[in-house]
Amino acid sequence: VPTVDLPLTTSAEPLLAATTTEVRDPHRNGGFDPQPGVARLTHAEQARTLVHGHGGAMLSTVARKPEGFPFGSLVTYLADDQGNPWLLISAMAEHTANALADQRASVLVAATPPADTDPLASGRVTLIGTLHQTDPTNDLRAEFLTRHPGARSYVDFPDFMWWTLRVESVRYVGGFGRMSWVDAGEYATSLPDPIAPAAHGICAHMNADHADAHPVLLNFFLRRTDIVSAHMTGVDRLGCDLDAKTATASYPLRLPFRNPANDATDVRNELVAMLNQARLSETQT
Amino acid sequence: VPTVDLPLTTSAEPLLAATTTEVRDPHRNGGFDPQPGVARLTHAEQARTLVHGHGGAMLSTVARKPEGFPFGSLVTYLADDQGNPWLLISAMAEHTANALADQRASVLVAATPPADTDPLASGRVTLIGTLHQTDPTNDLRAEFLTRHPGARSYVDFPDFMWWTLRVESVRYVGGFGRMSWVDAGEYATSLPDPIAPAAHGICAHMNADHADAHPVLLNFFLRRTDIVSAHMTGVDRLGCDLDAKTATASYPLRLPFRNPANDATDVRNELVAMLNQARLSETQT
Repeated sequence: VPTVDLPLTTSAEPLLAATTTEVRDPHRNGGFDPQPGVARLTHAEQARTLVHGHGGAMLSTVARKPEGFPFGSLVTYLADDQGNPWLLISAMAEHTANALADQRASVLVAATPPADTDPLASGRVTLIGTLHQTDPTNDLRAEFLTRHPGARSYVDFPDFMWWTLRVESVRYVGGFGRMSWVDAGEYATSLPDPIAPAAHGICAHMNADHADAHPVLLNFFLRRTDIVSAHMTGVDRLGCDLDAKTATASYPLRLPFRNPANDATDVRNELVAMLNQARLSETQT
Repeated sequence: VPTVDLPLTTSAEPLLAATTTEVRDPHRNGGFDPQPGVARLTHAEQARTLVHGHGGAMLSTVARKPEGFPFGSLVTYLADDQGNPWLLISAMAEHTANALADQRASVLVAATPPADTDPLASGRVTLIGTLHQTDPTNDLRAEFLTRHPGARSYVDFPDFMWWTLRVESVRYVGGFGRMSWVDAGEYATSLPDPIAPAAHGICAHMNADHADAHPVLLNFFLRRTDIVSAHMTGVDRLGCDLDAKTATASYPLRLPFRNPANDATDVRNELVAMLNQARLSETQT
């Protein structure tokens, strides 16, 4: 379980992030951020989270044919502890021949967008660096074959080779207007969000069984009175993202936790405690 | 509706493809093709079908930063009648700045793999060419916004620009070992498979309600006696793909139609007629 370095607090105040690389979105709210300083994962953490989610990935190499053109191809990969992707690729594939002639490459990892949403609204990260043909540790090899069981049928073919991309630059795009270059050192030392594997289930459960809690939480902790309903779209160790509705408008809001969560149980306990606090306050006013 | 140029036949013989670019898979059956000459879409047709399915797409450009590295990014696109993809991208995005400095690019389109399957077993195509900033026809613009409704919210922002990739080279990969360079002229003039939009539903229906027909069809039309069951994995205008089982083994088989299909109704009628033929033969022997 990754450690959490943010100071814990037991106050009613939601967390303020110590650092955030969030940039303003000129396409939304005229560039105005309605929740400045609210606790969010850094872009380095979001990039590591995406990469460790092992979604679909594209390798870009420098083509031999037609020479010098950027060549995109489909790959599977496993990220190591520093977020460097490892690939198991065949000498018969174009990208391998390209890499043998020119090491420069990038790996694009894109989140699987929710059904019927604009894929460009979901996160993706481009890892740029140089490809090196080298064998992984036994542990990494075993983990790769667990993650990609189809690879067991060809891992021992003589034309298959292990490569790793040594990441030198990281471009993160969280959606429209939320993008930045992430420092490669910060990328290497950041941790994937521990809530990510449970996030989809938490959102589905909250929306199905506890949607009535969403406006109560948002109105109390964001000091509003106008939210009438909300749909949870994401959750991480620092808070939840919701699509909120007033009587006349609809927009995304962030509900930061009071304390960072280390796992799904922490999220549950924090949401229950926050809801009790909000409802207690309601009955006292 | 695309036209079908293959000669129609009313004989009991399944179609033999006039041309096919299928290559042997050295990783499967020792490179031995158990069904040589069986009617399949050409790789050009498969590439056009994939591109017109508008799955997830990744653009590769030549990076300004770090200079000269191949840079992968997520895009949505619409293909025109020649299979050239059109993009609506922001001047603020890295790929646009890259394209303004160097036109060389590729667009990778990958089929959405069936759940719990190796994504590398599904088809993908890399379209390589040069990017040109130019406005689409009104029809193409309208079709783009229908296909990508999220784009309506930013199509009129001043930083968004239309680009098209003029395809010069095409690399098709149908799965392990099924790959080739497709002639760019053949790509431009080939037609997307007309069955593709209905294929998933046809397979689901056949597997749920008519799986008992699969071994009857395979044994009769492929002149076998050993198939005990089969699961339909794909269908196109020239035939069906099935994962077939004998008492001791399991492998993919192709069931070519006697006549090419133009739509889902043709597929239904052809399968019913073929099944009647096979069952009539059973009762006569």
